[in-house]
Amino acid sequence: MTIGIVGAGQLGRMLALAGYPLGLDFLFLDRSADTPAGQLAPLLAGPLDDPALLAELARRCKVISFDWENVPVQALRGALRTARAANAANAANAANAATATAARGAGIARIAPPLTALAAAQDRLTEKRTFERLSIPTTRFAAVDSRADLERAVKRIGVPGMLKTRRLGYDGKGQQLLRRPADLDAAWERVGGVPLLYEEFVPFDYEVSIIGARARDGSMAIYPLNRNFHHAGILRLTLAPWNAPRVARAAGSALRRLLEAFRYVGVLAVEFFVHRGRLLANEMAPRVHNSGHWTIEGAVTSQFENHLRAISGLPLGVAAARGHAAMINLIGALPPARVLLAEPGLHWHDYGKDARAGRKLGHCTLVESSAARRSARARALLAQLYPQLPLAWRGPGRLSESARLRRPAQP
Amino acid sequence: MTIGIVGAGQLGRMLALAGYPLGLDFLFLDRSADTPAGQLAPLLAGPLDDPALLAELARRCKVISFDWENVPVQALRGALRTARAANAANAANAANAATATAARGAGIARIAPPLTALAAAQDRLTEKRTFERLSIPTTRFAAVDSRADLERAVKRIGVPGMLKTRRLGYDGKGQQLLRRPADLDAAWERVGGVPLLYEEFVPFDYEVSIIGARARDGSMAIYPLNRNFHHAGILRLTLAPWNAPRVARAAGSALRRLLEAFRYVGVLAVEFFVHRGRLLANEMAPRVHNSGHWTIEGAVTSQFENHLRAISGLPLGVAAARGHAAMINLIGALPPARVLLAEPGLHWHDYGKDARAGRKLGHCTLVESSAARRSARARALLAQLYPQLPLAWRGPGRLSESARLRRPAQP
Repeated sequence: MTIGIVGAGQLGRMLALAGYPLGLDFLFLDRSADTPAGQLAPLLAGPLDDPALLAELARRCKVISFDWENVPVQALRGALRTARAANAANAANAANAATATAARGAGIARIAPPLTALAAAQDRLTEKRTFERLSIPTTRFAAVDSRADLERAVKRIGVPGMLKTRRLGYDGKGQQLLRRPADLDAAWERVGGVPLLYEEFVPFDYEVSIIGARARDGSMAIYPLNRNFHHAGILRLTLAPWNAPRVARAAGSALRRLLEAFRYVGVLAVEFFVHRGRLLANEMAPRVHNSGHWTIEGAVTSQFENHLRAISGLPLGVAAARGHAAMINLIGALPPARVLLAEPGLHWHDYGKDARAGRKLGHCTLVESSAARRSARARALLAQLYPQLPLAWRGPGRLSESARLRRPAQP
Repeated sequence: MTIGIVGAGQLGRMLALAGYPLGLDFLFLDRSADTPAGQLAPLLAGPLDDPALLAELARRCKVISFDWENVPVQALRGALRTARAANAANAANAANAATATAARGAGIARIAPPLTALAAAQDRLTEKRTFERLSIPTTRFAAVDSRADLERAVKRIGVPGMLKTRRLGYDGKGQQLLRRPADLDAAWERVGGVPLLYEEFVPFDYEVSIIGARARDGSMAIYPLNRNFHHAGILRLTLAPWNAPRVARAAGSALRRLLEAFRYVGVLAVEFFVHRGRLLANEMAPRVHNSGHWTIEGAVTSQFENHLRAISGLPLGVAAARGHAAMINLIGALPPARVLLAEPGLHWHDYGKDARAGRKLGHCTLVESSAARRSARARALLAQLYPQLPLAWRGPGRLSESARLRRPAQP
């Protein structure tokens, strides 16, 4: 079975690595041929909304998925419509009934996860409204389409608040913090002119995420809770499982509601702020997620394998943890392999990218027998790899970003 | 860094899957383009001893390794010699000293494991003499180049005995059992005419293997002992770690002596018979080994990753087990994915081959928290997958091939 994937970044690369042992083949579509996934699987190079390329993907693959949430939903819908119309025409012209049935069924790829979930994740307003509709607590928000809207939103919600583009934001891009009402002009200047969202700024204690898969038959596999540490808007460290049972239960319940609501197929990730022990949904990603990379070595079945199992109609794998994992993103430059691999038990993942400031080039994972040992080793390794990170990351007693985070409830 | 691999079977495929996360690239050489490794890495198709193809491999790769022990040693030696001569000529013609040095150093691939180890493993006589030289106990043997040699050997060593071709034997091929002196004629008829070895037949109790890696700096990583179960000459099941401390110590000591003696770089496997608690070395394989496939999920670092780390000059990874693993070879036909993957915690490896009787098409691995649970699940899964295997494999009390094996010392 060939899986088509729109986007050929590191997530696509790790999907291919997880899929080959399952006997799956891959065909990627990305703007450039020189991509992390294109190094180890066939690739169609061109614009992601090119109707001819999408039609080829739909023709050559049984299932189409994506490794990036900003893939063009309308173009994907259009490609499927074209493929169906072509098949219907072939069926109408077929000489006999059997050929007609074969033509009607042939070459129509399924898309998974569903495009409704993809569309919701692409628009912060739809996303927030989805959380609200499913009674998943989230920060207060208002749609902002004009300067007057922004003034009204700031008056109602107050400051501090975040002004965010509704679409195409990731890793903290397209976001403006309003500390005071006087920041309104500067923020509007920077991001105004496109559909926006104004959102209450929550002085959260820490950030978590939860990841799970839903299969075509409705069964689910939910991974343990991830505790995430960001710096400069980019994920730096994930510790999992994060032992906070009440928070984990609430996060799991929210994830299950989302998976059900979308009649989802594949892996879905949801990020939350934790504020005074209470969860606030921040955003969701309808794909495998950076905070789930630890599952390759730290869980019985990785998020990549479970995504592929789900979209190929196979039974889901066990999502339980094997030990206590720490995942560190390698950003901007890769340490020499001989240094990293001298670290006992370290698992290295090089994405095959050229180095560039702020770019995710790889990650590494440690799996330990206890949470305390895992945190100690993660602290030591972070201090060695990124001595320039804020000091509190490296202190002996705590592992938190001092500027924004308070000491977590439990280690 | 590009790794060249002669042979592109399932071992090459699993090497590539382990190497991509380390940032390695691959170039395979095999007779056909349609091979398990060729499905996910570039491949040169042609005879394995083609000087032009080997020279291209030597030019495009930093290290050349092999996934099959019957690769042509002389052709590999020749290709390296040609590459060195070409570089020396370029250096002599170079306009200045710096260019000359660069030309001399460029494009000469290392070969690992060493060709001396490869040559020894290709010839059962050299292999046996290597064991003898290193005081590694092995069965009594005699070289047989003529019918008269065979008569002498049978007289000296007695019956039962095995008459084996010295070269190109694997999975029980090229072997004849002599139960009585009267079997001599038939055996000679079948395999005579090529260099042979006559070997004492040992009514061994069970079979084990041990696998380890040696790095360029001489450091080693030795995996726990494997207990192997064969049927019709093909490995069916491996249980690891196999808890037999005295046997494991002796096997580890033999492996270390071999690794030292060859100044080995890469992964080496040695198979032993266990007879009344005593080890008898059967054969060695200078490559990753079927009985080590469990290390992908059942050890901290897989045999495939450690082979690549060793031959690329990187530090070795931890070879300790994670839990108790059972590996079952999938032979002749693959069960449907939806059946296999419904087995909780099962890891499936499809080699992407066409089905054919007796062909290794894939394997699956279970990792359990106890040896008892691991053995029980392996028994149940084997009975489900291969109900036609001898009954003793499926009985509740023991897991042994009744025709040849006695009850093992410990479960």
